[in-house]
Amino acid sequence: MTMSANTASTAKVNNGVNVMALLGAREALEKAPEAANFKWRASCQWLNGTHSRSTIGSFFGLGAEQPRTKVFAVEADHPKVFAAEDNAPTPVELVLTGLASCLTAGVAAVAQRRGIQLHSVKATLEADMDLQGILGIDDEVRNGFSAIRVHFEIDADANADDIKALVAQSQKRSAVFDIVTNPTSVLVTVN
Amino acid sequence: MTMSANTASTAKVNNGVNVMALLGAREALEKAPEAANFKWRASCQWLNGTHSRSTIGSFFGLGAEQPRTKVFAVEADHPKVFAAEDNAPTPVELVLTGLASCLTAGVAAVAQRRGIQLHSVKATLEADMDLQGILGIDDEVRNGFSAIRVHFEIDADANADDIKALVAQSQKRSAVFDIVTNPTSVLVTVN
Repeated sequence: MTMSANTASTAKVNNGVNVMALLGAREALEKAPEAANFKWRASCQWLNGTHSRSTIGSFFGLGAEQPRTKVFAVEADHPKVFAAEDNAPTPVELVLTGLASCLTAGVAAVAQRRGIQLHSVKATLEADMDLQGILGIDDEVRNGFSAIRVHFEIDADANADDIKALVAQSQKRSAVFDIVTNPTSVLVTVN
Repeated sequence: MTMSANTASTAKVNNGVNVMALLGAREALEKAPEAANFKWRASCQWLNGTHSRSTIGSFFGLGAEQPRTKVFAVEADHPKVFAAEDNAPTPVELVLTGLASCLTAGVAAVAQRRGIQLHSVKATLEADMDLQGILGIDDEVRNGFSAIRVHFEIDADANADDIKALVAQSQKRSAVFDIVTNPTSVLVTVN
């Protein structure tokens, strides 16, 4: 009953997410789990000072190289208070953007699945960092964020509890939320 | 002796990093550690489907709000294999970009400090993800990356050991390397 009710209401809402295709992909990957092994890539070219340009092109998934029709470029830099040129966001702001966009995409996908029409979704993020870490002043201070706060303002055809549940489910299945809140091993090699 | 040797060689190289200003900032923050408390921000607006636009403007640091002359916009989306429109990089690719650009900026800053002239720096990143996590197929599989590999190709006026040491020092002081490899608490609130 719940399922058919969901299906009926899903048809009525349009958040721009193709839930049927995603459910089909899930079913296909349940039968062929090796196709679920993805490799995401980025390549970063140093420009000058702390300014760099990263490019993001093809990735590997569903057992094959997945080309894209375009290559995306994302620049990064440091701000003027660090005696840099502020040509682009800082690397840590790009991480916040990754977290924000991952949770926001999740809210849209879960809302579509639950038959909830969204009108607007806005996420506001703030992260604390004690610069004594990256400047090497105090070895007890970490280099990264000490905490991150994410606040969602969501206008949707749903009550407050259902909207809270949307965000909770998005958080539960968010790749970037996991990357930020749990450790990931990084191997760095040179030349 | 080491210090003056460094200063002499630093003057000969130009990687576009103002090391003297950074050392001055470090000295100032050692005397006034409360000024080292920074707050970085991003704001994300849902567009449609999994497509969003984040904006990055002012931040707080050195005891004051730090305005910027411009607001940066960074879009994110999901690719066509997820039945999305591939308008922009995925959120996880933005995290890789943050990691790449943080380590690359660090290489430039450390090279300047050590009097090593850089000619080119390129970082190539690849991250493994098992989609059974985010699709909810297998609760034992994490949502994020299972591993990240970063490979640097660096052309510089230095021997292989000195180039390796540059990357090691950048990694040691990288904010994003820390964020990815160690857990950070994230508080999410709604409406």
